Amino acid sequence: MLNQRVLYVISKVLSPRHLSSMSFAKIRTVLVDLSGTLHIDKDEIPGSIAAVNRLSQSDLNLKFVTNTTKESKQCLLDRLTSIGFSVQPSQIFTSLTAARCQIDKMGVRPFLMLDKRALEDFKGLDTTNPNAVVIGLAPDDFNYQTMNTAFRLIVNGAALVAIHKGRYYKRPDGLALGPGPFVSALEYATDRKADVVGKPERSFFLSAIEEFQCRPEECIMIGDDVRDDIGGAMATGMYGILVKTGKYRDGDENQIDPKPTFTADNFSKAVDHILQNL
Amino acid sequence: MLNQRVLYVISKVLSPRHLSSMSFAKIRTVLVDLSGTLHIDKDEIPGSIAAVNRLSQSDLNLKFVTNTTKESKQCLLDRLTSIGFSVQPSQIFTSLTAARCQIDKMGVRPFLMLDKRALEDFKGLDTTNPNAVVIGLAPDDFNYQTMNTAFRLIVNGAALVAIHKGRYYKRPDGLALGPGPFVSALEYATDRKADVVGKPERSFFLSAIEEFQCRPEECIMIGDDVRDDIGGAMATGMYGILVKTGKYRDGDENQIDPKPTFTADNFSKAVDHILQNL
Repeated sequence: MLNQRVLYVISKVLSPRHLSSMSFAKIRTVLVDLSGTLHIDKDEIPGSIAAVNRLSQSDLNLKFVTNTTKESKQCLLDRLTSIGFSVQPSQIFTSLTAARCQIDKMGVRPFLMLDKRALEDFKGLDTTNPNAVVIGLAPDDFNYQTMNTAFRLIVNGAALVAIHKGRYYKRPDGLALGPGPFVSALEYATDRKADVVGKPERSFFLSAIEEFQCRPEECIMIGDDVRDDIGGAMATGMYGILVKTGKYRDGDENQIDPKPTFTADNFSKAVDHILQNL
Repeated sequence: MLNQRVLYVISKVLSPRHLSSMSFAKIRTVLVDLSGTLHIDKDEIPGSIAAVNRLSQSDLNLKFVTNTTKESKQCLLDRLTSIGFSVQPSQIFTSLTAARCQIDKMGVRPFLMLDKRALEDFKGLDTTNPNAVVIGLAPDDFNYQTMNTAFRLIVNGAALVAIHKGRYYKRPDGLALGPGPFVSALEYATDRKADVVGKPERSFFLSAIEEFQCRPEECIMIGDDVRDDIGGAMATGMYGILVKTGKYRDGDENQIDPKPTFTADNFSKAVDHILQNL
């Protein structure tokens, strides 16, 4: 008992960054990745539904954050609900949400190079006479004519906002180009840098917690992508818990410096670890 | 007369690189750009036809070098002939010729992303089961599906050969994307660097003079593009004469360091300058 008391005193003296997994006493908000962390396709990762409920019943703020460029918030909500998760629309924050926030803040009229399913998140915007190019994974728009339209807009002063700059992704038929190469093409042509809004950008994590008015060091990110989820969140000043599900591969915890605050077998174990160390 | 004699002796002592425009005594080969230097569209730049004839009647090797990605050697020859120039097919060296040479040397089977008019320069090549991607300005191929095919080939080990990496060019209806952005997209997706074959690459100028078996310091490049023609040639060790026609803009001679060896009002004056200083 004496040792635990000593540890408690030490934990109060150390700054949150040095607490590692010892104490999450100051934590107010938990950010959770979706695919690979809570579910894989249409299947729950065992124990995740109950673990989300445990978090919801705590005093912690809870937000689900994901790097989609194709699916609107409603698409994601429908999938989560059909699997059995209890999630509110306001709890979902995606790279598309981040882009929409960014556009609203900038007060610009976007030229949207986005998948049709993503357009729902951009309803109500004035898209006449565009002064911003917003680019996600939009194979139908990745043709010479549309790319040229975007190029001319940027040359004439339009902003360039990228949902994210992923190089490629895995499709059932093999690897396929992500939005990154096409963002890169426009950057090269115009000698301008895109404003990237998705993970692992600092602005993404800060936007996700904006409504809670808490500081990064009061937040924990849980995810299966050691760079985009954990590296990004920790670089923003948050704690990061890596789960060994989804895209996790042996040794991933050693891929970033500093290492993840904690590595858990799965989301349920990650939640237990947080709730036990509050 | 004494002063001229002194200058002559000095010129013999100095290395060719330091001769500036004083003497071209060691020159064996002249390289000449086409559009903007000899002609603009279908019009001769006055005096150019006669000047080409003067060069042809000298002992100098003569080659016409251009950065086209769309027109085959025959297209260019037909245009020059129709304007009134006397040019042999073997005297034309283009970025497409350079790409063809490169492919022949590599012994690869190319996946050709090229304008239909350019394909003539790639006749007789085996294009089954490609192990190289060759990319020029090919709007019809700049779509997601074809870019993805190229991406997968490169990921599987295919070489990436770019005709050139021009960012954009001027079309009657405004600026339009060049091949560069799409080359850049494939480079970003695959984390590989393209083998660029056109001007201002050193390899382009060396390939152009290969048949003459002369050294770069025995060559002069004449052109209207201070970076791609003059800067590229001079970085290869050649002399460079900038002409004030075509895309030349006031002060262009100050855009590169070292400056062009000489700046002439037009191609005819450039040829006079060479022939008078041999």
